[in-house]
Amino acid sequence: MSSQSWQDRCKARKRAQVDTLPKHWLIDLPSDDQRDVRDIPRTCGLLTLRELEITETTDVDCLLLNLRTAIWSSVEVTTAFYKRAIIAQQLTNCLTEIFVDRALARAKEVDVFLKTTGKPIGPLHGLPISLKDQFPLKGLETIMGYAGWIGRYADSDCVLAEILYEQGAIPFVRTNVPQTLMWGETYNHVFGRTTNPFDRYMTPGGSSGGEGALIGLRGSPLGVGTDIGGSVRIPSAFCGLYGLRPSYGRLPYAKAVNVAEGQESISSVLGPMANNLSGVRVFTKAVIDAKPWRRDPLAVRKDWQWDEYALAEHGGGGRMCFAIMWDNGVVKPHPPVRRAMELTKKALEAAGHTVIDWENHRHLELYECTERIFAADDAQDYLTECALSGEPLIQTMSPDTDAHEYALDEPFARAIVGERRHLNAYELWQQHKQKRDLRQSHLDHWEATVARTGTGRPVDAIISPVAPYTACPHGCNSDAFYTTLTNTLDYTTCAFPVTYADAELDKAEPPHRFYNHEDEAVYKLYDPQLFHGLPVGLQLIGRTLEEEGVIAMTEVVDKALKAIKQ
Amino acid sequence: MSSQSWQDRCKARKRAQVDTLPKHWLIDLPSDDQRDVRDIPRTCGLLTLRELEITETTDVDCLLLNLRTAIWSSVEVTTAFYKRAIIAQQLTNCLTEIFVDRALARAKEVDVFLKTTGKPIGPLHGLPISLKDQFPLKGLETIMGYAGWIGRYADSDCVLAEILYEQGAIPFVRTNVPQTLMWGETYNHVFGRTTNPFDRYMTPGGSSGGEGALIGLRGSPLGVGTDIGGSVRIPSAFCGLYGLRPSYGRLPYAKAVNVAEGQESISSVLGPMANNLSGVRVFTKAVIDAKPWRRDPLAVRKDWQWDEYALAEHGGGGRMCFAIMWDNGVVKPHPPVRRAMELTKKALEAAGHTVIDWENHRHLELYECTERIFAADDAQDYLTECALSGEPLIQTMSPDTDAHEYALDEPFARAIVGERRHLNAYELWQQHKQKRDLRQSHLDHWEATVARTGTGRPVDAIISPVAPYTACPHGCNSDAFYTTLTNTLDYTTCAFPVTYADAELDKAEPPHRFYNHEDEAVYKLYDPQLFHGLPVGLQLIGRTLEEEGVIAMTEVVDKALKAIKQ
Repeated sequence: MSSQSWQDRCKARKRAQVDTLPKHWLIDLPSDDQRDVRDIPRTCGLLTLRELEITETTDVDCLLLNLRTAIWSSVEVTTAFYKRAIIAQQLTNCLTEIFVDRALARAKEVDVFLKTTGKPIGPLHGLPISLKDQFPLKGLETIMGYAGWIGRYADSDCVLAEILYEQGAIPFVRTNVPQTLMWGETYNHVFGRTTNPFDRYMTPGGSSGGEGALIGLRGSPLGVGTDIGGSVRIPSAFCGLYGLRPSYGRLPYAKAVNVAEGQESISSVLGPMANNLSGVRVFTKAVIDAKPWRRDPLAVRKDWQWDEYALAEHGGGGRMCFAIMWDNGVVKPHPPVRRAMELTKKALEAAGHTVIDWENHRHLELYECTERIFAADDAQDYLTECALSGEPLIQTMSPDTDAHEYALDEPFARAIVGERRHLNAYELWQQHKQKRDLRQSHLDHWEATVARTGTGRPVDAIISPVAPYTACPHGCNSDAFYTTLTNTLDYTTCAFPVTYADAELDKAEPPHRFYNHEDEAVYKLYDPQLFHGLPVGLQLIGRTLEEEGVIAMTEVVDKALKAIKQ
Repeated sequence: MSSQSWQDRCKARKRAQVDTLPKHWLIDLPSDDQRDVRDIPRTCGLLTLRELEITETTDVDCLLLNLRTAIWSSVEVTTAFYKRAIIAQQLTNCLTEIFVDRALARAKEVDVFLKTTGKPIGPLHGLPISLKDQFPLKGLETIMGYAGWIGRYADSDCVLAEILYEQGAIPFVRTNVPQTLMWGETYNHVFGRTTNPFDRYMTPGGSSGGEGALIGLRGSPLGVGTDIGGSVRIPSAFCGLYGLRPSYGRLPYAKAVNVAEGQESISSVLGPMANNLSGVRVFTKAVIDAKPWRRDPLAVRKDWQWDEYALAEHGGGGRMCFAIMWDNGVVKPHPPVRRAMELTKKALEAAGHTVIDWENHRHLELYECTERIFAADDAQDYLTECALSGEPLIQTMSPDTDAHEYALDEPFARAIVGERRHLNAYELWQQHKQKRDLRQSHLDHWEATVARTGTGRPVDAIISPVAPYTACPHGCNSDAFYTTLTNTLDYTTCAFPVTYADAELDKAEPPHRFYNHEDEAVYKLYDPQLFHGLPVGLQLIGRTLEEEGVIAMTEVVDKALKAIKQ
């Protein structure tokens, strides 16, 4: 280990990253006061008109069609997105690993292959894909937000990267994460803080916040995040994206790095994030089609099921019954989130579906059990990794200066665990048992909705907030219960954008009877002007290992929403 | 809790069980010296010729055909098997719960349904099925070998039982287990010891030993065991049966009782046991067709895959390449087991397949990791259950009197763990991480066999011993590594019978260089006369969640073996 202090090592590594930014792709930076930076890729002059056209093609099906028909070469598509990613980096600090030459070299190979054989390499032919800083690529470091991991060069690709290469994709950047990954924001001592391109005063969410900011700025057409408590869905919602949380093991996590490895009760999963649902579908199918179970012992042996995508178990997608979880009983959603649910209800009803109210089921017990499992080692895993370099464990995501005032000493998630101590194996097993019993109870509760739907089936999917707010100021994203719910229950869940917060439409509401101290703090956080213009996302919750159906049902919702907006 | 001593409570419960035996089904018992009791159902005079014909129809497809075409009624089939099960109970002490009236009442309903509607209730129409003492049935106790569980009446059926009823089956007896379930034999303080019908001096194996003895005597056409370390496969091999260990979650365990609940890293699974592979296939498909994931949150959402059963990923079943694991490097198999592998090799080659040697991969590390996870709570789970009644934790399966001399103080499985102490959560997670890495390594090792098979595919399946011996004297089944291997790796595995030990053919071999003290003890245990005539089984090991393919490949092996025997 280096004799340098952890601060010096972090500084040196950050400097090295800055050095990898191609000089001719540097732009004139706006002032730090400029909060909304979404227009800058169009105005900074770095991108050609064609590059703007390419990077603003959010439909991944369309990108892939143009790539495989050689209308666009992979080199030009990769160059366009790379330039825009470097702009995004300068504006939001969303990247970790930058490897332009390598990505373009692969893009070239892919182009040559198509030219020589007349055939695409695979279903992701030529498409640049960004990866969260957990997915090792041979020869590159994987730092994952720990100072002590600086200098860890991978000697092979992780299984996901192997598959992406084989399917024709071009992994082209890696993206920032919070230290420990267990935060809904994105800040670490090595690469610093990622900001939200809609409003840099705000967090892009986390832990896949680098992906959120990058894709939100259209610096990548498709990215891969991970989700153990909402880490795909929170940045998706905060940055106006679609993002899928598949069930445990549907997509291959093998040889990726992670936090609290061996905690295999509530497992992290990887999932796609994109500006368009086609990206979510195409990625999921392409990875499954590669039969990941032949390389990942934890990957579920289950081919892509077209009949599930055709909603065979949901009446063929005809009249379905959705249930809305207006409020999880722990933190009441802010007015923009409430309005997004109302819009969705209206849209679904206009499309001929039924919408009923979801009845919450044992949420507090579920949340308590979840937090107890996460805290079972009393942070020994995090502390062990921090001790490698001597860096401190980060205790708040609030910036040192200019932090938004947020009156919350301890989030409810910590309070609910009570006394913190290291559990022994038997005690941990009792938590697992409790979790299984709660999953059983929740499943039975869902099945029992058959009495209320009028379709002869239980509720087809639940629609709920992703978080009780839109993107919020750095340091204020204290709540993750809307998302952890489905990590614990292992329900396949897809985040989707609905609308934008609007100071006119989303007035503050009078105080309600607060559920707990955090609910009160979140209530007080709301200010119509502060949140104006930020994207509002929701999530669609389906069943365990129901990826095909959840994608298809989210498409139904998405179409319904687009129809009423027209 | 009762003020009675645990001994008195056990005696009273056993007496109550004896009282449930229908008096007119009691037989003249052979002397305790009579070791092989397989002929007694035929000679005792209790069964009519037709009942003998029914109970000796080992092909479950055939039984089901006769049931659904009303050639045999469910009442007569259930009665026939019930009578034979009661004989088996008198000879081997294999049952726990006996509920004749209830089973016959259901059989009657099923018969009436068929008569009235002209249709069978489901794919298991009218078939009596026996269940290990872990599967609650409403209104009956579930004691699972613990004195402290006497009097635990279930207020609902477990999910498996619900499904079996709906698919037309008649659950008709429950079967004996060892205290804690974590033994490869079958003895507890409540119901006592189960013996092997081929030789009552021998154990039927365990922990599904009640099923093994019962089905071995054809007292049930199809039974359900569970397997966390070999508990379906060991009694299958020891009693001449077929038995499937599916992968985690393929079949629904919900609302069944279990040991060490919450230990969800190496999970127990349930699987069918039968005298014929058709029973294994029919059961597996019927349960999956009921979509168990709608009732069990841990059940894998995956329909029965006909293309996998057609061996689509194994060249359509044409020329396949099997690898034989002659010896796991921990305990060398006895001569009858070795000969069974040679026979299988010969049979497969005669059928046009290739057979190569399996190369062992990190077995000692896998075994050590497995045992450490099982022992992580330093027996707190077992001791907690024993403390309910004050009964002691059973330390050996050796009978108090007449025990076979077996020079083994401590099995290798205990020695390998080293110091026994209660792990904390972080330490347990490190074991899980190690296990995942070993699973990855083993999968990569398997995939790499593509270089040696000549089929263009990796080895299609591995064939290995189930145990290093056939059924052995009570108290001597010390080794379970041949089976735990695939519990840890979560490979779908199917046990199948091959031949019988033969004192002429299976001479003792000169001592080899012993791997460890248990290997030496097992070597010394071998005596050609002692084991003469006992069934010898092997297992076929496929991939995770490959139930359809494993059943189909076991059918290939079974046919090949039958062909060379003719």
